[in-house]
Amino acid sequence: MTTSPQVTVLGLGKMGQALARAFLAHGHATAVWNRSPQKGDELVAAGATRAATVAEAVADAGLVVVCVSDYAVARAILEPAAAALRGRAVVNLTADSPDAARELAAWAADHGIDYLDGSIMTPTVTIDTPDAVLIYSGPADLYQRHAATLAALGGRQHHLGADPGRAAAFDVALLDIFWTAVAGMAHGFALAKAEGIDAADLAPFARPIAELFAGSVDEQAERLDAGRYEADIARLETVAAGLEHVIHAADRRGLDTSVQRAAYDQMRRAIAAGHGDDDVAVLAAALLAEREDARSRA
Amino acid sequence: MTTSPQVTVLGLGKMGQALARAFLAHGHATAVWNRSPQKGDELVAAGATRAATVAEAVADAGLVVVCVSDYAVARAILEPAAAALRGRAVVNLTADSPDAARELAAWAADHGIDYLDGSIMTPTVTIDTPDAVLIYSGPADLYQRHAATLAALGGRQHHLGADPGRAAAFDVALLDIFWTAVAGMAHGFALAKAEGIDAADLAPFARPIAELFAGSVDEQAERLDAGRYEADIARLETVAAGLEHVIHAADRRGLDTSVQRAAYDQMRRAIAAGHGDDDVAVLAAALLAEREDARSRA
Repeated sequence: MTTSPQVTVLGLGKMGQALARAFLAHGHATAVWNRSPQKGDELVAAGATRAATVAEAVADAGLVVVCVSDYAVARAILEPAAAALRGRAVVNLTADSPDAARELAAWAADHGIDYLDGSIMTPTVTIDTPDAVLIYSGPADLYQRHAATLAALGGRQHHLGADPGRAAAFDVALLDIFWTAVAGMAHGFALAKAEGIDAADLAPFARPIAELFAGSVDEQAERLDAGRYEADIARLETVAAGLEHVIHAADRRGLDTSVQRAAYDQMRRAIAAGHGDDDVAVLAAALLAEREDARSRA
Repeated sequence: MTTSPQVTVLGLGKMGQALARAFLAHGHATAVWNRSPQKGDELVAAGATRAATVAEAVADAGLVVVCVSDYAVARAILEPAAAALRGRAVVNLTADSPDAARELAAWAADHGIDYLDGSIMTPTVTIDTPDAVLIYSGPADLYQRHAATLAALGGRQHHLGADPGRAAAFDVALLDIFWTAVAGMAHGFALAKAEGIDAADLAPFARPIAELFAGSVDEQAERLDAGRYEADIARLETVAAGLEHVIHAADRRGLDTSVQRAAYDQMRRAIAAGHGDDDVAVLAAALLAEREDARSRA
């Protein structure tokens, strides 16, 4: 017998397995289920109970944690078990878009299931370490009720608000920032290579450039919230001219320039809208204004 | 009389004025010229000599520094003064593409002009401070001869090699990394805003994400030089799936997704080429491989 609530983990990919291991390590009786049952072999050896069906897996659960590839899969797993889930708490840590989270939350509400949505912001290796960052959204009291159990997953955990889509919205915005930057870094290193520059020679210059980028996050945020775009260092027109040199150089070396062209086109549209003398931070506002324009025309 | 070499600065935009001020501050007799002469008013008040023509401006110059909007403008200024420039040293700090630098270097060689190309990697405000970073390429002995004079411009200065296009190649590769990342950050903040998230709420999460990006530069470089792409944390297939959620979420909010779609398409092409299970660092190599493919088909 354990006094900790029993936890069920549905979905045993690498992340799901890490979650189940963390619950086991923190003394929770842990039931696991996966479409391909053998994914649970190591967890069963470590003390988990393997269930043959989702309904069986959740039968005694104090908390049901879902971690699968996307929300279509999550729904396909949860919907047939709706009766067994009634009155239980589900935390869905599957990554998807905010609307998918809101739709699943609405479905859960219709079926009397307590639903919390979450996103895991750090890689699998961080689970059950101080480096883990998890964010949640949905009913605050539901989060509070399960925070002690979820603490098994590691480091820093944040409840961001009642809108069930809010955690996923943070997630996609942060993925956007990170992976676009990584795509740009890949292209910059490829351009250097095409110019005969080893990555090891570029890196000592690229690192401070990337640190400058990291250091600019707070100012970008402050400018956007305040609508303050007077240029001190980076006029949008100057930035666009620099990006034009990048595109020209990459074209000459036969490298794909689609990402840089798309960014350049966004800047040119913002300049055409009168923002050439504004700080480059105006770009976010210009993208939002385009969206408003498209809406008012629709 | 001064024992420091006389310096001529051609082009008195904000950066050109900062360069001239730095040379004056370090005791160099400084001649200045700009197409619109009034841009030199403050410099003349600070002790600079204003020349009516480029030929007059360079007549006594130990070093000619050029800083204009692009190389087309640089050539338009230098070509009519070729005779006056013969035997003199020109350092061109105008930003442009590597090939433009190589072409101007070839023109200079044809006219008996010592030519060094350079890029200023930091904003105007850093000139004559320890934060300035300038990079140069062209003949090493020419750089050595003028390094003491150029030291007036500030902080860290690096000679990167004999290829006159090398400084510009570093410049465009670094601009590529920085401005693509900034475009992605603008989009991420816009997506958050469209989801009702204030930039101030996203920033505490965006900052560590951007720091993680900065911290990944050295590994990206090491992987690319070594051709080592086994995935530990970020499989390309997983990254592409994340970016797909970003695009879906932004589409649903009516935001332009051209940059993210272009990055996603690059990833899908790399996955189609067999790199789905590789680390995302393979993206640079995949872009270079596409270029080789296109060349071998041409």
